Amino acid sequence: MKRNQFHIPEGVIYLDGNSLGPMPKAAAARVQQTVVDEWGDMLITGWNKAGWFHQPGVLGNRLATLIGAPENTVVLGDTLSIKVYQALAAGLQMRPDRTVILSDSGNFPTDLYMPDGLLKTIGRNIDLKIVAPEDIEHHLDENIAVMMLTQVDYRTGRLHDMADLTTKAHAVGAVALWDLAHSAGALPVDLGNCNPEFAVGCTYKYLNAGPGSPAFIYIRSDLTDKVEPALAGWMGHSSPFAFDTQYTPAPSIERMRVGTPPVLQMAALSAALDVWDDVLMQEVREKSIALSELFIVQVEQRCPQLTLISPRNSEQRGSQVSFAWEHGYAAIQALTSLGVIGDFRAPDVMRFGFTPLYIDEQDVLNAVAIIEKVINERIWDQAQFIQRAAVT
Amino acid sequence: MKRNQFHIPEGVIYLDGNSLGPMPKAAAARVQQTVVDEWGDMLITGWNKAGWFHQPGVLGNRLATLIGAPENTVVLGDTLSIKVYQALAAGLQMRPDRTVILSDSGNFPTDLYMPDGLLKTIGRNIDLKIVAPEDIEHHLDENIAVMMLTQVDYRTGRLHDMADLTTKAHAVGAVALWDLAHSAGALPVDLGNCNPEFAVGCTYKYLNAGPGSPAFIYIRSDLTDKVEPALAGWMGHSSPFAFDTQYTPAPSIERMRVGTPPVLQMAALSAALDVWDDVLMQEVREKSIALSELFIVQVEQRCPQLTLISPRNSEQRGSQVSFAWEHGYAAIQALTSLGVIGDFRAPDVMRFGFTPLYIDEQDVLNAVAIIEKVINERIWDQAQFIQRAAVT
Repeated sequence: MKRNQFHIPEGVIYLDGNSLGPMPKAAAARVQQTVVDEWGDMLITGWNKAGWFHQPGVLGNRLATLIGAPENTVVLGDTLSIKVYQALAAGLQMRPDRTVILSDSGNFPTDLYMPDGLLKTIGRNIDLKIVAPEDIEHHLDENIAVMMLTQVDYRTGRLHDMADLTTKAHAVGAVALWDLAHSAGALPVDLGNCNPEFAVGCTYKYLNAGPGSPAFIYIRSDLTDKVEPALAGWMGHSSPFAFDTQYTPAPSIERMRVGTPPVLQMAALSAALDVWDDVLMQEVREKSIALSELFIVQVEQRCPQLTLISPRNSEQRGSQVSFAWEHGYAAIQALTSLGVIGDFRAPDVMRFGFTPLYIDEQDVLNAVAIIEKVINERIWDQAQFIQRAAVT
Repeated sequence: MKRNQFHIPEGVIYLDGNSLGPMPKAAAARVQQTVVDEWGDMLITGWNKAGWFHQPGVLGNRLATLIGAPENTVVLGDTLSIKVYQALAAGLQMRPDRTVILSDSGNFPTDLYMPDGLLKTIGRNIDLKIVAPEDIEHHLDENIAVMMLTQVDYRTGRLHDMADLTTKAHAVGAVALWDLAHSAGALPVDLGNCNPEFAVGCTYKYLNAGPGSPAFIYIRSDLTDKVEPALAGWMGHSSPFAFDTQYTPAPSIERMRVGTPPVLQMAALSAALDVWDDVLMQEVREKSIALSELFIVQVEQRCPQLTLISPRNSEQRGSQVSFAWEHGYAAIQALTSLGVIGDFRAPDVMRFGFTPLYIDEQDVLNAVAIIEKVINERIWDQAQFIQRAAVT
């Protein structure tokens, strides 16, 4: 759909845009402009002249259109972990008498870790209850303060029904917090209709904003001026440059800002969002399903050793497909050396993302041919592929 | 000392490096390399191949040498506000029976705001007590859990005696947390000898790492494996890529990492630190004092309308000089239009930073001549300078 707007290295079939999206060609020039023409020439005046100060909100509004959020409900900044903390702390404040955060075992680790620190800091007796993804609805009861879920499971691609679970959470009076890390830019998200109180996500996966690009947070519009920020930073103050000694949160989503925004990362994000300007998310979804289906059918046919662990039904799956295989780690290393880049998740998951902006059917067929070769010709079974690096 | 390594725009005398340092020439190429050669060509493999994953610790060790910190006590990431929160939460945990955070009215607003959110989140009855900078030592008693101070006052440049106050805080059993935002890169800091439990700071001022560059946190080495992180993110986990559902903090300063590091900002920081490789901080300090003294003497002589609000004694002053003047806002705007860039801090402070890496005596004399002209010829008294922008 937009392949010519991305830099895909020669000889690479990139099936890892669900982990780190490739570089939009315009990003390089945009970042350079921000470094040289803005930082270099404007110096401190860039905060006004180049609009750095307002970028978190301006880009928040652009991103909002991709996740079905109204204007002024999304702001950029920090990392997904920090945004989870802010949303979770706010959700717990809203339910002072409840005692449980409900999540599932398919949630991303950092989403499960952040409550650990929060609950040690907070003075309330609250438990984090982690159940199987399919059991969430059976554990929704009036003890639940916050239901905190990631819509698309990072390992399996299993897709929660966000509208349905949010409705069920609200029926028992729980606050809903959704992590859209693997949703934003991958499939249509309609926050306005699903109606959760909070959502968070990152921009370096399907949104292609580069390594370490800022995260986002959404607060439902009726709550933006009610939430008491746990992270009360000066950029979220109602008048940051009045330098009051008293904290007064901004009367808008801007109160979720904390410190100085990462201006260079914001520049890359700005270029990355340009790519989406005329893209229909429904079309992305349809093409992603077609690519994923083709991949599953081909791999199952040609590599029967691999076990599909993603849902077979495409409506229950995000934009990635995972297979379990005991030699998965070595196979992913071997595939990378041959230009087919997916990734590995412990203990045995080979994960492949399908991103129609820059991947097409021919890429899928070529990738499967190489996967077949790596597995059936035992290319994976070489010392350099089997040995694990310290970080993978 | 290093002027040829910085890009200073033609016609500009930059006296605002205490707010945002200018661009080291090498930063532009370094960032472009990270964008194009690393993100562009390495894609996801950049986390290992380009060393992105380890940058927060690697750069932390480089920065440590500039603030007298031992190896493996400093890590980069997030923003100063977030690092204040982490350190403050840890300090409060260490003194569970105490009831007061002591700070001063010269602390930077975000340092005073972060306790607001923390204290609303935490379940303990703790007060933030804000006293005059010179009164800190008289308020140190056995109720104080954490003494939280910024070494150099952002408005006046007043310099606290970090060694002396830390000793006094320890004498009453309080934890010491120092913000080095206006110290790192400005004057010799000896954390190892001053012995505070925590320090934090930013890298976009005197360290010249660019707008929104990451912050740093220091933990005294006997405490690094004892502090329970309030922000329990996956990058601070002992095995981030094992994807355990249980949080186990890294057995090192790395536990203060939270989410994915801002790789492009880290690249700029890396180039900015190169400039410091053969710089002696004592020499920077001596030259900064000489420049500041020259500036004060000249301004007092030629612009008697201005009132020095920085300490007159250079040993009690950081690397900036501030004058109060009722028309300060307009004067700073007029000066900027003529290429002399300082900044304004409400209500009436004209602030000028002296950074010997790229500013010399001739710059100071030229700047004073323009300041004299702006003030004595009433150049400030024009509509475009008097009107305040929304953000300044």
